[in-house]
Amino acid sequence: MGSVGGTGFIMTVLRRQDMKSSLDYFFNPKSIAVIGASNNPQKPGHVIVKNLIEMSYPGKIFPVNKIETEILGQKAYSDISKIEDSVELVVLISRSDMIYEIMEDLDVRMKKKNDVKAIVCASAGFAEIKDEEGAGRQEALMATAKKYGIRVMGPNCIGVIDNKNRVDTTFVETLMPKESKGKPGGISFISQSGATAASILMIGASLPSPMRYNKFVSIGNMADVDFIELLEYMEQDENTRVIGLYMEGYPDARRLVETMGRISLKKPVVVLKVGKTERGAAAANSHTGSLVGADRVYDSAFRQYGIIRVKSIDELIDTMRAFDALPLPRGNRLFLYTQAGGPGIYCMDTLNDYDFIEFPVIGDVAKAKLKDMLLPMATICSPEGYADITASATVRHHVDGLKVILDEDNVDSAVLVTVVPNFLPREELGNELKKYIMSQKQKPVFPCIMAGNYVRSSRVILEEAGIPTFDTPDRAARAAANMTRYSMFLKKRGRAYDQDIK
Amino acid sequence: MGSVGGTGFIMTVLRRQDMKSSLDYFFNPKSIAVIGASNNPQKPGHVIVKNLIEMSYPGKIFPVNKIETEILGQKAYSDISKIEDSVELVVLISRSDMIYEIMEDLDVRMKKKNDVKAIVCASAGFAEIKDEEGAGRQEALMATAKKYGIRVMGPNCIGVIDNKNRVDTTFVETLMPKESKGKPGGISFISQSGATAASILMIGASLPSPMRYNKFVSIGNMADVDFIELLEYMEQDENTRVIGLYMEGYPDARRLVETMGRISLKKPVVVLKVGKTERGAAAANSHTGSLVGADRVYDSAFRQYGIIRVKSIDELIDTMRAFDALPLPRGNRLFLYTQAGGPGIYCMDTLNDYDFIEFPVIGDVAKAKLKDMLLPMATICSPEGYADITASATVRHHVDGLKVILDEDNVDSAVLVTVVPNFLPREELGNELKKYIMSQKQKPVFPCIMAGNYVRSSRVILEEAGIPTFDTPDRAARAAANMTRYSMFLKKRGRAYDQDIK
Repeated sequence: MGSVGGTGFIMTVLRRQDMKSSLDYFFNPKSIAVIGASNNPQKPGHVIVKNLIEMSYPGKIFPVNKIETEILGQKAYSDISKIEDSVELVVLISRSDMIYEIMEDLDVRMKKKNDVKAIVCASAGFAEIKDEEGAGRQEALMATAKKYGIRVMGPNCIGVIDNKNRVDTTFVETLMPKESKGKPGGISFISQSGATAASILMIGASLPSPMRYNKFVSIGNMADVDFIELLEYMEQDENTRVIGLYMEGYPDARRLVETMGRISLKKPVVVLKVGKTERGAAAANSHTGSLVGADRVYDSAFRQYGIIRVKSIDELIDTMRAFDALPLPRGNRLFLYTQAGGPGIYCMDTLNDYDFIEFPVIGDVAKAKLKDMLLPMATICSPEGYADITASATVRHHVDGLKVILDEDNVDSAVLVTVVPNFLPREELGNELKKYIMSQKQKPVFPCIMAGNYVRSSRVILEEAGIPTFDTPDRAARAAANMTRYSMFLKKRGRAYDQDIK
Repeated sequence: MGSVGGTGFIMTVLRRQDMKSSLDYFFNPKSIAVIGASNNPQKPGHVIVKNLIEMSYPGKIFPVNKIETEILGQKAYSDISKIEDSVELVVLISRSDMIYEIMEDLDVRMKKKNDVKAIVCASAGFAEIKDEEGAGRQEALMATAKKYGIRVMGPNCIGVIDNKNRVDTTFVETLMPKESKGKPGGISFISQSGATAASILMIGASLPSPMRYNKFVSIGNMADVDFIELLEYMEQDENTRVIGLYMEGYPDARRLVETMGRISLKKPVVVLKVGKTERGAAAANSHTGSLVGADRVYDSAFRQYGIIRVKSIDELIDTMRAFDALPLPRGNRLFLYTQAGGPGIYCMDTLNDYDFIEFPVIGDVAKAKLKDMLLPMATICSPEGYADITASATVRHHVDGLKVILDEDNVDSAVLVTVVPNFLPREELGNELKKYIMSQKQKPVFPCIMAGNYVRSSRVILEEAGIPTFDTPDRAARAAANMTRYSMFLKKRGRAYDQDIK
């Protein structure tokens, strides 16, 4: 796998349909051993076991610890060779200098059982530290893995999550309540940086409704599984609706970008690529040791291939959520429907950064309907494609006006901005917007309900129904523009977009 | 007042020192009548009285309501003329068509008592609706006000806050707990949009520690008090350390920008100016009816005068907080100290957007100290001005390394990025960083402690001590760059910056 990139698009599809991928063992293992599991809540090896339990992982968990006999209610084993049951996935979080001993134990096990299919090596202190010791450790890990055909994720990664299969091998604490864990969505995300991955998990857990991933992967040193193989895996994965990437660099930039480009004809690929300048590239090189190509080469390739490049962590999160949950706009005609003048203008300023966005002229009948329905002081279609329904607008003004606009044939999407005043019932607004947005699945609505804790209850109602909401008008505008850009790319390439994954 | 702009800089200073400003009555009134006060929690007239009470406003509150005899425990009056006590400030939140009757009552009162000095007209439905009725109402309001020399804020505004004097005449609900209300800071903010003002209040209330304003003003239609007069008031106000503005346009752009420019030689002026494009300007014109100058004229004037233009609400909030709480960097040499590789590179990418930022080469002794003190795998000064202390870094690595760096003469400021892993005690990190940052008040540190709810307790510790923290590395970078830009502007103009306001 991974090496098939060169054999072309059709070959890959045919082969994938026939075979089970070896990567499946990372995302849907029947059992998991955690080497370096701990009873000390301050150890990552504790959090991994805790995360698996809180995720209600349905398979067996085998903590491995030299001293303890039980960890978080699970029987513990002194080394990997001592586990009687079958082990499919091993998560490794011990000190890196113990890798030699652990690989010996694994060798003992494999000779007897030959059951382990995959290792997530979450420990750091391998090739990324760029000395002989680190390199030696990584070699030792890979030697045993190759000997038995075991796939390796990492080292120097934070783990792997599959929400659908209720697997969480990360050691990241987010304070997400147990009942919110494991809600699957269509986002699959790959991060070259463990810390960025952890940050994004932490931010995602704190949203009005937590981020819904399909798969989440911290890829680490890529000693074995790398970007391209994972991308191809997610390309084939029918539960992945949008692929997100955080990347610093990759040795074979051309092949990576071509793979991303091929995929982007089928599903959106959203990238936060850092190391934009020489200095940034130097820092990236110190960090992961990956060769960083000139950023402008990436940038123009991304444009050519319809890959959506985002500029910030916030935009990455917003855009992935929008692609996951909202229908793709059929075209570039966007209506800005605002209850708040200033925030509306601010939103329009952001939309004007994207020269491909058009503001549609809606029909006279629709305009008359809006005039009838809205408050006398509302500003309707001045300028065209824009309405300000004023701060006195009721819930019905919000929802019914939006419906009139989206019923117009020449409107492809709408951004809704509202700053909820005290007399506007927040929960009712959330519920009525939800009802309307769920009732029409043809055109996307990008809701920005402001602001702060005051409107959280309203946003929770929409988000729990799978409709993303946005913190500020510029963030809603960027998500809408990114979806529109992708829609136009597909159109230009004559591709249809499969919106019915979920 | 306000008209003195043309009489020059020195005249203004001299006159201000001699006289009490008529604007004082908005920010420090001895008593407040609320016309349109209500017992219905869904009415803005209820929230105004509630906000005043929750703010522990020390003066007398007189709710005015035709029917009720008591509102939120305060004796209510059927009209303004019936209040026996002296009334300094009137807040008006009745329906706009009642303005004629209310002005008659006010006339009756003024003939008897002549006590009202200022009106905050929070009602909408005046000149901004651009019809005869609206214009007539505004004329009626202003006729009575002028007759008695009463100053007017608005109409069509959301009110005025003074945290130091514990005045809150806004009708914005934020869910901020009572005990957090009224913490004064050095930020004074003026917004041309009520909705933007409300959003910023709501966002500010939801930060790890709520925004600390000195004065907060929603300026509305500017029937009387306008941008320039308020700016001059805040220029003189010794408790205002930084002035923030949200603006769409102003009839006399030259005079406004010159006023801002004069002030920016003394204290920073941070502006979010919208209506950047023709379409945006058209929307702005529909909204407030203000004449919008060509955006590029504003933009170049802002640059020339050292006025800090921000691009987003987030950047506005971050930058105002940074100027309020942190010492101004003495120069442009910024050290990026990160515990997380990916987020560090991402931060560097943002810093590289600002060509005036320099990354200092620290001395060999300091480098050796860092090498001794930090973990073996830490990356020190590669590239220069950058250190990655790795995810295994302890609290001491965070704090002691930062100290070594800021002790260097050629370092003017530092951005700190950290993604807190489970083994790093969050509260201890917050406390130790706080101790260090409070112990040296010469150089600013911009801390980005990631992410989400997980690190909130750590951020609360810093923020309650007055040290702002930033959601993401790019946000910390922008705040640092904005302060650095201002520092360089002052230097070029040979101005010293008074850092000792608080």
